[in-house]
Amino acid sequence: MKLLEEKILTDGTVLPGNILKVDNFLNHQIDVAFLNKIGEEFYNIFSSENITKILTVEASGIAIACAAAQHFNVPVVFAKKGQHKNIGTDCFTAEVFSFTKGTSYDVTVSKKYLNENDTVLILDDFLANGQAALGLMKIIEDAKAKVAGVGIVIEKGFQQGGALIREKGVRLESLAIVDSMTDDSISFRSND
Amino acid sequence: MKLLEEKILTDGTVLPGNILKVDNFLNHQIDVAFLNKIGEEFYNIFSSENITKILTVEASGIAIACAAAQHFNVPVVFAKKGQHKNIGTDCFTAEVFSFTKGTSYDVTVSKKYLNENDTVLILDDFLANGQAALGLMKIIEDAKAKVAGVGIVIEKGFQQGGALIREKGVRLESLAIVDSMTDDSISFRSND
Repeated sequence: MKLLEEKILTDGTVLPGNILKVDNFLNHQIDVAFLNKIGEEFYNIFSSENITKILTVEASGIAIACAAAQHFNVPVVFAKKGQHKNIGTDCFTAEVFSFTKGTSYDVTVSKKYLNENDTVLILDDFLANGQAALGLMKIIEDAKAKVAGVGIVIEKGFQQGGALIREKGVRLESLAIVDSMTDDSISFRSND
Repeated sequence: MKLLEEKILTDGTVLPGNILKVDNFLNHQIDVAFLNKIGEEFYNIFSSENITKILTVEASGIAIACAAAQHFNVPVVFAKKGQHKNIGTDCFTAEVFSFTKGTSYDVTVSKKYLNENDTVLILDDFLANGQAALGLMKIIEDAKAKVAGVGIVIEKGFQQGGALIREKGVRLESLAIVDSMTDDSISFRSND
């Protein structure tokens, strides 16, 4: 998505540890008008998949999922991280390993909100090592629902997440794929 | 908001510990079309306040803030909970005591996203003891910005948060105020 690549080049900052900071429009301050364009783009890509639910994980995925859901006209479900006593005990849970933190955490979805009749689109802001997306895919499988695909705003193409998802035969669509980045340059994978 | 009260009566469940569960449309599964009506209602209430930013706290406030921001045509900023190494060190921080958990946590906003020229609307899903809203108000004061008001989807009128905010002279508008609830009934405060 050309507009997104331009926005990343204009507004993004590269920090040590392969961190691409885009918190002025995507995951701390949110440019809601821009996010609606992202939501519309996901709709253009996945509109033929008969999506019934959009699944994401708190926190930064929520805004993206809601922006897209307006076009699909389906509910959003966001998985909760860690312990949530309010969510009840009848849940689907997956363990997600965070390479950044070196520890694992649980993502959880109430069984009320996913079932075998659902065709689910997973959306998230970033894809790096892919562990969160794989956790959401496990939850969808446990619910006997169908994974329609995974939509990512920014994929770090130099990390393994993309390969792990594609080798499972799941359709992965990333609006921008960063192939390399340094302090003063960011290179995107070509769409050709 | 009549429509919201009806939705709470139809879809809400009361659990032990004064928990009102509305996770099938508000804070786990999200009914995006309904949330847009809530966002529009906040716009109708606060449209004359010259809002420049909407501030909320992760996670369940994000969807509500984004729904409203589309009508105000302003950015959303969501405060992060706990430690966030990616957010940088130049931040406004407030400590929030959770009566539910009996412990405190920090809410943090980068100094880049709030300043003295901002007129800020705080939005959140629930107001109970008011500690999160008071924390966000402190952050706005630290930024020398103006608090335009606080908009809440569901206020628990039998807890102290509403009184704490109103006695500071801040405009608080709750779309539904629950005055009492039991296993089989929920009573709302009249609008008169």
